Amino acid sequence: MSLDLSGERIRATYRLTTSEPEALAEAICVEQTVEFPPEFIGRQDILDGIIGQVEHLEASEAVISYPAEAAGAEVPQLLNLLFGNVSLVPGVRLVSVQLPASVRAWLPGPGFGIEGLRRLTGAVGRPLLASALKPMGLSPRELASLARDLARGGLDLIKDDHGLAHQPFCSFEERVKRAAASIREADPTCLYAPHLTGPAHRLLERAELARDAGAGALMVCPGLVGWDVLRLLREEIGLPLLCHPAALGSAVVSRAQGVEHGLLLGTLPRWLGADVTIFPNHGGRFTFTPAECQGIAAACTSPDPSFAPMLPAPAGGMRLERVPDMLDLYGQDVVLLIGGDLHRGGDLVERCRAFRELVG
Amino acid sequence: MSLDLSGERIRATYRLTTSEPEALAEAICVEQTVEFPPEFIGRQDILDGIIGQVEHLEASEAVISYPAEAAGAEVPQLLNLLFGNVSLVPGVRLVSVQLPASVRAWLPGPGFGIEGLRRLTGAVGRPLLASALKPMGLSPRELASLARDLARGGLDLIKDDHGLAHQPFCSFEERVKRAAASIREADPTCLYAPHLTGPAHRLLERAELARDAGAGALMVCPGLVGWDVLRLLREEIGLPLLCHPAALGSAVVSRAQGVEHGLLLGTLPRWLGADVTIFPNHGGRFTFTPAECQGIAAACTSPDPSFAPMLPAPAGGMRLERVPDMLDLYGQDVVLLIGGDLHRGGDLVERCRAFRELVG
Repeated sequence: MSLDLSGERIRATYRLTTSEPEALAEAICVEQTVEFPPEFIGRQDILDGIIGQVEHLEASEAVISYPAEAAGAEVPQLLNLLFGNVSLVPGVRLVSVQLPASVRAWLPGPGFGIEGLRRLTGAVGRPLLASALKPMGLSPRELASLARDLARGGLDLIKDDHGLAHQPFCSFEERVKRAAASIREADPTCLYAPHLTGPAHRLLERAELARDAGAGALMVCPGLVGWDVLRLLREEIGLPLLCHPAALGSAVVSRAQGVEHGLLLGTLPRWLGADVTIFPNHGGRFTFTPAECQGIAAACTSPDPSFAPMLPAPAGGMRLERVPDMLDLYGQDVVLLIGGDLHRGGDLVERCRAFRELVG
Repeated sequence: MSLDLSGERIRATYRLTTSEPEALAEAICVEQTVEFPPEFIGRQDILDGIIGQVEHLEASEAVISYPAEAAGAEVPQLLNLLFGNVSLVPGVRLVSVQLPASVRAWLPGPGFGIEGLRRLTGAVGRPLLASALKPMGLSPRELASLARDLARGGLDLIKDDHGLAHQPFCSFEERVKRAAASIREADPTCLYAPHLTGPAHRLLERAELARDAGAGALMVCPGLVGWDVLRLLREEIGLPLLCHPAALGSAVVSRAQGVEHGLLLGTLPRWLGADVTIFPNHGGRFTFTPAECQGIAAACTSPDPSFAPMLPAPAGGMRLERVPDMLDLYGQDVVLLIGGDLHRGGDLVERCRAFRELVG
């Protein structure tokens, strides 16, 4: 028998930091597919059709193509093909990926996107305003009270802090029910996004619980629960999804290794169904550069016939004073996510209103 | 109300590459817990009990403790607490973790461990011998034929190559059924470990299918499907589990960032229920050093009252000539995993027997 391949190829661009780019590019072709010495492969169709092919190699960038069928129409294997074993190789950074039509067809893309989020929240012609319920240690009742004030203050989106999971001092179920009820009562157009952490066998059940309790969105950290959970929630739950970068940092921060910021925190969440991607803005508590942040924002909103545009949510120590600068960098299609700084000065509702006034 | 905390603490040691280790250690305490300006927290019990505490800071290593309750008895949140947002901070490497009794109690540990694997395979007093079914592109029937030869040759463990998922040219179900049947027929003590890639909503179903088809073990890549899947399979399926490092590389390869090799690829899989951890041996296709490999092996087998010892499986371009050197480094408690090199010379069964003779 011989392989019946469509000829459609996935094209991945890797930046190679090495003195021997040709050899490394050829090694990637083998490592990411057959992982087997080509000289021991007796089948010409495998040699020709399965092993990656260097399509282009210039300076330090190699474009390598793989057969669409190697991804098997499943998210974990698509990631494996693009970045499984080469994640272990220093000096290899995956910078961009072009998908053929057959792969785009099985990736869901944002269920709501920018337009859907604006419709749900009524936030038109301006950035969406968001905050987080925290600090860890507050009870569900206390968090619900905070949530009420944030919603009264005019925010569009209120998410759990990503450290809120299912802890003895704050159970998932009680928190979600109380916070969702408070927010709905204060402002029915304000979306509440509980943080869904697992466990693996109860993710869908918790997502359904949240939806039934009135949560208007969900937040997940693919670095904690796996990327395919994003796709699953997109297909099964019908709520807008926020992607959070916890535990994904190692893949982006070392610039000669890993995956490019825009691809990991923009393109990939967009393919899998996120409507918002949260990431550390430059000049806050983290070290992303303005260019890296712009790369993420561009990946969220670049024109794409298959996937609706989604919203970047630069965060991580943002203050009200940063709003003008964030609008300069990101324009109006952005979620401005401010946490602790809204608690500065005492009156949370008033501070939220001041935040709202900053964006017109 | 006030927090009712046990006082049990999780102790995490971070190596800090910075000119200001005190400030960075204090920042980690806040970042990993409340993620909120402490000066805005009115609750003394949260300030005292929830925020991380620097227990020790010497040279570049900080020991930071967190309340056991912050992990919420769930794997994703434990990882989040230890390494969620700090994964985004260059110069922070998580090097070791000490868990209190209450956390150890909800982590399953290996279901079989070294002793269980030796009992199942009959491999006593010597290393276990393993290989992988590959290359990608072969049909289930062809892979089953390879599997038969590998089992006839005397191997103890045969795994899917990690690039085998559920592809049009090789479906998960057909491959697993055929390979499991071939191996059982050739040698009932040889364990077959199919690679379980997802999708997220079908992982357990596929694991059950594999078990019912006669697979004696399972392999997962936590970097592709999420760490909690390892715990779930351990608790639900009752087969030995192999952990594969695909897509986890970025977390270990940059030595001033991420997670220490032994912790990520040894300790963590062991806590969550793996019986074997596969990793790239030094001197193969990857760049781990002998010391890093030893760190993983030590994490697999160090005495621990809560978790049975598990087997390291150094791999990634190993050849028969490397066996003596691997025995020197790892001793007898090791899985020797050799792939392509068994196909050198033509007669696979004979080559496996030569492999078997090398270990007495």
